[in-house]
Amino acid sequence: MSAAAALDELRDALGASHVDTSAEGMAPHLTEGRGLYSGSAIAVVSPGSTEEVAEVMRAASRHGVPVVPHGGNTGLVGGGVPTDAIVLSMRRMNRIREIDALNSTMTVDAGCILQSVHEVAADAGRLFPLSLASQGSCQIGGNLATNAGGLNVLRYGNTRELALGLEVVLPDGRILSDLTALRKNNTGYDLRDLFIGSEGTLGVITAAVLKLFPLPRQRVTAFAGCADPHKALALYDLMRGSVAENLSAFEYLPRFGLEIVLTHADGATDPLAGPHAAYALLELTSPDASANLRGTLEGLLGRAFEDGLIEDATIGASETQNLALWRLRESMSEMQKFEGGSIKHDVAVPVSRVADLIDEGVAACLKLMPDCRPCPFGHFGDGNLHFNITQPKGMEKAAFLSRWPDFNHAIHDIVAGMHGSISAEHGIGLVKREELKRYKDPVALEVMRAIKAALDPQGIMNPGKVL
Amino acid sequence: MSAAAALDELRDALGASHVDTSAEGMAPHLTEGRGLYSGSAIAVVSPGSTEEVAEVMRAASRHGVPVVPHGGNTGLVGGGVPTDAIVLSMRRMNRIREIDALNSTMTVDAGCILQSVHEVAADAGRLFPLSLASQGSCQIGGNLATNAGGLNVLRYGNTRELALGLEVVLPDGRILSDLTALRKNNTGYDLRDLFIGSEGTLGVITAAVLKLFPLPRQRVTAFAGCADPHKALALYDLMRGSVAENLSAFEYLPRFGLEIVLTHADGATDPLAGPHAAYALLELTSPDASANLRGTLEGLLGRAFEDGLIEDATIGASETQNLALWRLRESMSEMQKFEGGSIKHDVAVPVSRVADLIDEGVAACLKLMPDCRPCPFGHFGDGNLHFNITQPKGMEKAAFLSRWPDFNHAIHDIVAGMHGSISAEHGIGLVKREELKRYKDPVALEVMRAIKAALDPQGIMNPGKVL
Repeated sequence: MSAAAALDELRDALGASHVDTSAEGMAPHLTEGRGLYSGSAIAVVSPGSTEEVAEVMRAASRHGVPVVPHGGNTGLVGGGVPTDAIVLSMRRMNRIREIDALNSTMTVDAGCILQSVHEVAADAGRLFPLSLASQGSCQIGGNLATNAGGLNVLRYGNTRELALGLEVVLPDGRILSDLTALRKNNTGYDLRDLFIGSEGTLGVITAAVLKLFPLPRQRVTAFAGCADPHKALALYDLMRGSVAENLSAFEYLPRFGLEIVLTHADGATDPLAGPHAAYALLELTSPDASANLRGTLEGLLGRAFEDGLIEDATIGASETQNLALWRLRESMSEMQKFEGGSIKHDVAVPVSRVADLIDEGVAACLKLMPDCRPCPFGHFGDGNLHFNITQPKGMEKAAFLSRWPDFNHAIHDIVAGMHGSISAEHGIGLVKREELKRYKDPVALEVMRAIKAALDPQGIMNPGKVL
Repeated sequence: MSAAAALDELRDALGASHVDTSAEGMAPHLTEGRGLYSGSAIAVVSPGSTEEVAEVMRAASRHGVPVVPHGGNTGLVGGGVPTDAIVLSMRRMNRIREIDALNSTMTVDAGCILQSVHEVAADAGRLFPLSLASQGSCQIGGNLATNAGGLNVLRYGNTRELALGLEVVLPDGRILSDLTALRKNNTGYDLRDLFIGSEGTLGVITAAVLKLFPLPRQRVTAFAGCADPHKALALYDLMRGSVAENLSAFEYLPRFGLEIVLTHADGATDPLAGPHAAYALLELTSPDASANLRGTLEGLLGRAFEDGLIEDATIGASETQNLALWRLRESMSEMQKFEGGSIKHDVAVPVSRVADLIDEGVAACLKLMPDCRPCPFGHFGDGNLHFNITQPKGMEKAAFLSRWPDFNHAIHDIVAGMHGSISAEHGIGLVKREELKRYKDPVALEVMRAIKAALDPQGIMNPGKVL
């Protein structure tokens, strides 16, 4: 490996100003959001075109230098932490290449900020539905590389389901051009989905064709209180079976989760008169301005009340009220911080088991530590919970967090027993690599390694991540 | 290669009755549906379990014998034609392993007939939406291996979008167990989508977890006459933008297509009073029995008429009338036979270009042969047309069919110019292998070959297909 020679070649090819070796320039790229991991880089290189990305990979390949692609560096599993590597920043590649409203697609550079993708789509009368807390800074290339989830998966799918074509620079600098904007295409192996979710370990996604959807012209949002998560699951089944895709969100909060939001979030008020053990935040949307969504939702909630599935519910009477209901859910993660340390999980099980997961997970946590405060919340309708555990009151934060592996194994073993996933939407990165070896089918790991070796024989693409 | 030794081992492992070397037993497996290609087999082997499939692959691998997996053998591109190979028939593996209505999934053996999958899902109050002409005999494993399309792609996606997990026996007999029933799972590379659509060249799909949907409780079907395909495209845009996923089909027929159905199909009548150049068959479905689908459709068709998008339209007044409208579309392929030879294409372009494709394709055909009769029809809302050309009246059929390559290149060049696909839903198989080399990105072909070599280094899985 000759890092210096590689950097010299890249200064020639890209211009010296796009090869940053300054401590200040590199600092934001060395750590991940939670500050749990930090690494080291030999430079932050910012190519301005696909051909320049190919130059970077050719130079890295010639000299055996590792490369870690960076979007907004908002990942939560350390997937972007470099070790003596070139950080390949996609920030300069932020053009919208094309929008085709009639085909409901747009072609974008990988470095486009998610929020700007939303805005351009909306200007064309279309929706790009991927919705994440970090949408103001994350890049679409990172969303694709990690197959990001978020709040709209129930109706529109994961990022994987939102891409039709990709352009990828391979580890040796070859450019794979598969920017098709087609709904149907059976011409060979599906390479697109191999790169989506591979966390930068197989190549650099440089552009994508994204699927767009009709813009919703109305939404109704409801907040329902249930006696337990099993009742919430029955409510989900009633809703989904009645309105199908029009059910665009079905999120879950336990009473403890709502309480910490009510305690710590400015202006938050309980939308229901009394307390309930389990809450569902649900939303119906439609592009049909004349559809009677509110009437449909009122009818279904009325039926749910009669059938004993809910104890109480309210429907947002205005967009202001809808947003207030959503804020209760969206401020969950942040408000947990005010209660001390949190041990976190991002797990999924079949939707039919999600209430069981809450019961069994809570019991397992309390068995490990009787005064811990479990707070499983999240994307209930996808079977995906952020099964977080808040520390006991008065305990030292570090002492609580030192028990992270015990809680991990307890929750992950329950999830594995339900044929679930130990990483539903955040990926593997650095953080879950050992857990992956513990829970993944060994033949699947062998096939992954064979593919990695076939596409990246030198092992220079984001080494040490996933596998 | 020692075929005899392999067969001896398989007689021991599976029982002699499941290793068929008789001419009668092998005959149905040697040709494809249209009779264009025929091959040769050394035996038809019918394992009864995943472990027995693994035995077959281990024996084949030890002795270097090629294996061609067979479902219902209903493919249209010669993907199942063997050459001195073991045909691995999945017919005995036809169990429904599990149905989980609350999770909207079912787990099935690969040898289940598509129709029986529909029936079991419906009994549980759910829809499995994949709908094909061959559904009475094709198997779900074959549908997955070829990523089959069909009539419901507009709302529900291709077969790829209908699977959550797979079980696959690799060429060396290892069993990859990835039968997850999860909506979200980011634990490593997406191997599922690599095997889906690989046409049996990377492994044998032995089981799958399928996605189910709410059962539609109503449908309304309309047949609209338009002045040209561009008006039909504007109608599609209006419909999709107004009702989103509730638009479950948008099919296209040219006047010539309707005429041959009216001429040859028993009891077919023109649903509209006068002739129109272009027809759309469209359908709205909803699981909500109380939704006013008919009112919505009437309103939209009224608006389309006022805006000059349609010249006339009718809505089926009963399920009998709906079925009669569908029969006009579904009998297209068969009725073409009565007009002599047909040269066929299965192409896709961005939906925004589908009307251009019809215009440019028809012009190119007439330039090649002024009295040929182009009949582009099909899945307009997916951008996927079966761009068929019926022979001139009175021409000798063989003389017409000898021009197949000329018409292929004309249509495929137009499609390639629109960044389209030369095989939208049928795959590559034997028939389109040379065309694939002509039109596919060369780097994509290299990556496909690298993956093939990594997973099947001996080249025994369905050799000579796709690549």
